[in-house]
Amino acid sequence: MKRKGLTRRAFLATASATLGAAAIPPVGFPQELGAPRRAYGERSPFEKSVRFFPESITPASSYSKTPLQDLFGIITPSALHYEVHHSGVPEIDPRRHEIMIHGLVERPLIFTMEDFHRLPSVSRIHFLECAGNSGGEQIGRPAANPQRSHGLLSCSEWTGVPLRTLLEETELKPGATWIVAEGADAGRLARSIPLEKALDDVLVAYGQNGEALRPEQGYPVRLVVPGWEGNVNIKWLGRVQVVDQPYMTSYETGHYTDLMPDGKARQFTFVMEAKSVITRPAGGQELSGPGFYEITGLAWSGRGRITKAEVSTDGGKSWQDAQLNEPILPKAVTRFRFPWWWDGEETSLQSRCTDETGYLQPTREELVAVRGLNATDHYNGIKVWYVHKDGKVSHE
Amino acid sequence: MKRKGLTRRAFLATASATLGAAAIPPVGFPQELGAPRRAYGERSPFEKSVRFFPESITPASSYSKTPLQDLFGIITPSALHYEVHHSGVPEIDPRRHEIMIHGLVERPLIFTMEDFHRLPSVSRIHFLECAGNSGGEQIGRPAANPQRSHGLLSCSEWTGVPLRTLLEETELKPGATWIVAEGADAGRLARSIPLEKALDDVLVAYGQNGEALRPEQGYPVRLVVPGWEGNVNIKWLGRVQVVDQPYMTSYETGHYTDLMPDGKARQFTFVMEAKSVITRPAGGQELSGPGFYEITGLAWSGRGRITKAEVSTDGGKSWQDAQLNEPILPKAVTRFRFPWWWDGEETSLQSRCTDETGYLQPTREELVAVRGLNATDHYNGIKVWYVHKDGKVSHE
Repeated sequence: MKRKGLTRRAFLATASATLGAAAIPPVGFPQELGAPRRAYGERSPFEKSVRFFPESITPASSYSKTPLQDLFGIITPSALHYEVHHSGVPEIDPRRHEIMIHGLVERPLIFTMEDFHRLPSVSRIHFLECAGNSGGEQIGRPAANPQRSHGLLSCSEWTGVPLRTLLEETELKPGATWIVAEGADAGRLARSIPLEKALDDVLVAYGQNGEALRPEQGYPVRLVVPGWEGNVNIKWLGRVQVVDQPYMTSYETGHYTDLMPDGKARQFTFVMEAKSVITRPAGGQELSGPGFYEITGLAWSGRGRITKAEVSTDGGKSWQDAQLNEPILPKAVTRFRFPWWWDGEETSLQSRCTDETGYLQPTREELVAVRGLNATDHYNGIKVWYVHKDGKVSHE
Repeated sequence: MKRKGLTRRAFLATASATLGAAAIPPVGFPQELGAPRRAYGERSPFEKSVRFFPESITPASSYSKTPLQDLFGIITPSALHYEVHHSGVPEIDPRRHEIMIHGLVERPLIFTMEDFHRLPSVSRIHFLECAGNSGGEQIGRPAANPQRSHGLLSCSEWTGVPLRTLLEETELKPGATWIVAEGADAGRLARSIPLEKALDDVLVAYGQNGEALRPEQGYPVRLVVPGWEGNVNIKWLGRVQVVDQPYMTSYETGHYTDLMPDGKARQFTFVMEAKSVITRPAGGQELSGPGFYEITGLAWSGRGRITKAEVSTDGGKSWQDAQLNEPILPKAVTRFRFPWWWDGEETSLQSRCTDETGYLQPTREELVAVRGLNATDHYNGIKVWYVHKDGKVSHE
């Protein structure tokens, strides 16, 4: 590894002590035997990072946000995956749960979870992002830290059966062009999905980061619709009906439509476009003085792979390529890194990314010029963090 | 996706019910609002999979094994990562922990964890495997299930600073050829590592699967030495001393050497060779009758990428290529899958793999012919599971 832009002086400034020839034993080393083994591990009591959620008078219909500023790599720990629920988190006994595939098919089928686990499966790393993630940024209410601004985003290794496999087994009838997927939560959240996508890369997933789905992410089974807005990724999946048109469910009419400046609403705006955010240094953090800092963050696109992430440390006047951490996977987050020497002066930090379609993440101004300020879903503008002379980093 | 070898008849046999034209609502769907959000999630109360460990009169010096038969994909949930401790799990306060780099260097350095987190980092998915994993198989005591036979194996996304970065900053003196890495656990577990490897791909890791290392995996900081036996991946890292020779610590003389048939011991047998195991269907599981089953398992090599995994369902008479799940990463586990129609007769299931060096995983007989039966570390022979007429799968 060649360190770009990391000078010796910069690097040494981060080391708390340079030793003389005689080595001093490090402090704080345990002198006694440690704790025994555990059947199911827990994190260190010194680690306190949690999901953020505001109080709500309707707690079953609300969200919690992932602490992006505390995460490493691309996998979101399942315990910290963001949540959006419209009817709370149902407790489902997998021994009683079934998945029904019916509608415009020759052979409707019901699967128990035991049957389902025997089917051919694949594992894929994909991000999920709520359509409303970062919506406050669009209307000029920038959030104070990465968790508040971009925390309705997480990334997991999902394991499941391709929906295509199930649909092929039922044999589609002529006229089949959409599916309606319905959750088994109390509100039976349902979304229409074009058959073309259902036959492409959609998973009926039962695994998340190596173990069973977490209850908040749809246990025992959910849809993963790679690159598409979170609410289409139906959790607690109970039913897939093959149909001949979109069914205009409440979550694609009353919710999750985007009101444009001309008063018309965009509907079925499924794809989450290319987006990025710097997670360290970022709002709510503090630099301990001039010196070397690694800028790091996440970039993702619902249209495929990220091909470039750029960082500006001078208020957007110039942009430099950040390093992308391998593997760079389609419709997954990609972590980027950029070495930075802070000279102690006021400045701003921002990132932008490009995906494999050539699309470049827009500025807020570019986005607002097209979309206006009525709708705040699908906002993907550039996020700016401001570095102050005292080392504090803030959102304004 | 084209399903290889999956016939319509086979597939339909797995569906519990084929519906008539009138759809029957699935059972068990909740009727009431579910649970609210949580700051830090937990798994479903219906999920019970745990690490296995026997009682021990020295619980601080023992192991626990990962339930491989219950896992999906390639990521091992951190709560289920295998453990091997020689002095128990220390509770280390990261605010008091330091890493010292000294010895044959121009400029010895001490890092606090806060300093350390500012350094340039990378994330990599790698397996860890205890040298002793599956040792019982070699001496003719095959274990009853994948957890017991191969559960000293796990795979995580690790994030940390390349050790090369730290060593370059200290400036190596002439004569530097090895390092000794020492843990901060009560026993100060130490291992010698050739400088060539230390400058290659070793990470000083603080992140595991997106969050901080778990205590059992070395919190707050450990070595990750990709592809090399687990005990070299020093946990709770406190000190790296640059030296001019291997230091013959107790864990490379009294332990972790391999006694050959001629009475001489192999030493510094670092690399974990190519190996695989079928995790489903496998010992301890039961087939519910003739029909379709997906055979799945894991393959890995300390020398790089897996290029092929093969499955035999006829006692080793014939071998067929399994499908490898993307991404296939160097020195990480790769999940393989193979569609299988069980005809209800007695048979056996086994897997073997090949890595990018062209090395083919040996049979037990081939391995024992060379290594004998004295040493049981680094056993990587083919594992056989026996399918009985009643559907039970066993190790003999």
